[in-house]
Order: sequence, then structure tokens, then C-alpha cells
Amino acid sequence: MLQLYFSPMACSLASRIALMEAGLEARYRQVHLWTKKCIEDDADFCSISPKGAVPVLIMEDGERLTENAAVLQYIADLKPESGLAPPPGDIDRYRLQEWLSFTGTEIHKGFLFPTFWYKDDASLAKPRARITQTLSVPSAHLADREFLVGQRFTIADAHLAWALLLLRPAGVDVAQWPSLSAYLERMQARPAVKEAIAIEAALRKTVTP
Amino acid sequence: MLQLYFSPMACSLASRIALMEAGLEARYRQVHLWTKKCIEDDADFCSISPKGAVPVLIMEDGERLTENAAVLQYIADLKPESGLAPPPGDIDRYRLQEWLSFTGTEIHKGFLFPTFWYKDDASLAKPRARITQTLSVPSAHLADREFLVGQRFTIADAHLAWALLLLRPAGVDVAQWPSLSAYLERMQARPAVKEAIAIEAALRKTVTP
Ligand SMILES: N[C@@H](CCC(=O)N[C@@H](CS)C(=O)NCC(=O)O)C(=O)O
Ligand SMILES: N[C@@H](CCC(=O)N[C@@H](CS)C(=O)NCC(=O)O)C(=O)O
Repeated sequence: MLQLYFSPMACSLASRIALMEAGLEARYRQVHLWTKKCIEDDADFCSISPKGAVPVLIMEDGERLTENAAVLQYIADLKPESGLAPPPGDIDRYRLQEWLSFTGTEIHKGFLFPTFWYKDDASLAKPRARITQTLSVPSAHLADREFLVGQRFTIADAHLAWALLLLRPAGVDVAQWPSLSAYLERMQARPAVKEAIAIEAALRKTVTP
Repeated sequence: MLQLYFSPMACSLASRIALMEAGLEARYRQVHLWTKKCIEDDADFCSISPKGAVPVLIMEDGERLTENAAVLQYIADLKPESGLAPPPGDIDRYRLQEWLSFTGTEIHKGFLFPTFWYKDDASLAKPRARITQTLSVPSAHLADREFLVGQRFTIADAHLAWALLLLRPAGVDVAQWPSLSAYLERMQARPAVKEAIAIEAALRKTVTP
């Protein structure tokens, strides 16, 4: 069975959403990101992945895959009929990869990450100044579209929805971008997304620093 | 014809390397990243891409594609016989996506980018502390491998080689990781890589801030 190493409300939530949208069964293994221990058995998470970061997916052949952009595409391709990713070769597949990269590089590492590192306004000035320009890109794109790519929900939406959810704890009010807040509401209304968030929000409350 | 918007020695160098390794003709359009102007005709680069960032590839259908991870896969798939990317569906394709994501998120946005933003040691402490752990991952992987994925040069190598080249200007000596410096030398010895770097290093000298 697939196994997903995750931490509640961390970026691995996008992978959980993809698994649940695809209707794929998986075993979810919670990691404590500060202590780098697996909750279940106190195992050293860095022996699972030396990156020490979630998501880690144990694939069907038992090998380990990391990085959201890769894990999400792997999950989607296990269930092509789910439409979670346009088929390889389709021009929309590159659009999907473009959005996965944008969310992973510009929103996650370019903004959310620094807000965990830095607590002083001086260091946060640059990422804060940039996030406004960054978010104007999906905001304009979603002004007249329901989903990021094509006419249906894809893994790019799972990824972006997670990133948008984290904006508030990072001190940014998504209501500044009406098309993004409407999009986030639409995504959160999907049964699989709603269930995934409910599970992880509840687990998140049990995590001690 | 394909067109690549680039800035000398910026991350668009990976896309130039991919085009040259694939033997694909392209028109290269230089952008001044501070003024956001196209060098050739003084056009507003942000009207080409509101992200204001390179690479931007004008694809064969005239549409614009951004983000290295997407642009590189698009280029590789135009010439499958080049072997620049494992075929879709192959497990190594996900490994390729894993490395593209790692380089784009952890090395580029997680380290190189902050070194352009911050000039004070306090703000740089976190990214500097992290880069050592980050680079230990490809360093261990390349200890007994010639390339990142499979037995041949791929776009993941084009991407990582660019990122490693930028480490020195960012104040990190790659010689600390012997397997990475040997790898970078091997990559730079490839005729297409050597030519791509020579072209951009020469152009770089003409760029004024
Ligand atoms: N480049 C990775 C980033 C993964 C990542 O940053 N995960 C975070 C949680 S959102 C993590 O596990 N951080 C722990 C750490 O870096 O120590 C991806 O895009 O998947
Ligand atoms: N997420 C993009 C990042 C592109 C990027 O950061 N490009 C830089 C050059 S290395 C740039 O054009 N920066 C100009 C700016 O951000 O103003 C990717 O991975 O391709």
C-alpha cells in the first residue's frame, strides 16, 4: 500500500488531498518536524529521507519519492481517469508543471518559508513586498477560471489551495485578492478537500513544538 | 521558431543548455532584469510575462511558458531521442521531476535567492546554515553516479549544474563537496554546456546594474 509521511497542515497536505481526490488508499505516517521523529514508533525520520522534510511517499515498488511536484504527479498518474493531471504530452501537462513549480518556488519557498525563519520586520520586508506581486499572477489567472488548469480540479489546485490556506498564519489576508479567496472557498467546499483539511487540522492541535 | 527570454547567467541558462544539448534552434532574447526591458527593442518584459522573471519560452504554438521545471520538460519532450528526459510513465520521469523541484525550491529559492535579497549576516544565517544540509543530498547521490537520473545527461543536470555554478558568487565554495565539484567539472566539459556558459558569461560582462 502507498504510504505518505506527513505533518499536519504542512505541504504534504497537498499530497493527502490528491490521494483522497483520486480515491487511493494509503497509510498516513505522521512526522514531528522539529524532533524529526515518526509519531507512531519514534523512528528517525531522517533515515526515511535525509532531507528531513515531508512529503515522502512510499511508492508501489517500495521506493521513496520526495518533493511535492513529483509526488503529486506520481499520485495523479496512478489514476489517470481521475483527471488529476492532464495526460503526458498534452500541452496542459506543461501548464500543470508550471503551476506546481510556481507554488513550490515562489509561494512556498519564496514567501511561506521565510515567514517561518524570520520574526523581525527588516528580514520580512523583502518576502512581504514580493508576495503581493507573486499572488497577482494566480489572482489574474483565476479571475475567469474555476481551476488553474483546464476545466477540472487537478493536483495544481491541491498544491495552490494548501499554499493559500497557509497565508493567514503567515500574516497575509487572502481577502485582498477576491478571485483567490473565492477560489479557496470553492476548493474547500470539495468533499475530499474538506475531509483532508478536517483530519489534519484536528491532528495539528495535538502537535507540541 | 522557439524563443527564449533569458538573462545572462540567470536560471534561464538551464533552458539554453537544454536547447543546445537537444540541438534545437531558438531565438534568444535578452532581458535586463532590473529595468525589466528587452535589450533588443526596449520592449516591456512584463508585457511578455507579468512574472517579470526568466525563463520565458515562446513555444511552437506561440504560447508562453514560464518556470524552469516546465520549460525544461517541454524542451526535452520536443526531442525525445535526445534522452534529455526519461519518457513519461517511466519511474525515472518522477525522479527527474523530484530533482527539478529540489533544485528550484531548495537551492534556487531556498538559498540563492536570499543571498541576492539580504546583505547582512543576521538575515543570511538561516539560508547559509541550511545550504550545507541541502547540498549533502545531491552530494551523497552523486558520490557513485555520473548523472542525477539514469545513465545519461538530462535536464535535471542542466538545472543543477546552473545552480552549482551560482554558488560561488553566492559565497559558497563547492569544493567542500568533492562529488559535487567533480560533477560540475564533468558537466562543464560537455561541449553544449561549455558553449552555453561561454556565450552567457561574455554577455554577462556587458550587463550594467
Ligand atoms: N521542496 C519540497 C519542500 C518540502 C518542505 O519544505 N516541507 C516542509 C513542510 S511544508 C518540511 O518538512 N520542513 C521541515 C524542514 O525543512 O526541516 C517540496 O516542494 O516538496
Ligand atoms: N520559479 C521560477 C524562478 C525564476 C526566477 O527566479 N528567475 C530569476 C532569474 S534566476 C528572475 O528572473 N528574477 C527577476 C525577478 O524576480 O525580478 C523558476 O523556477 O523558473
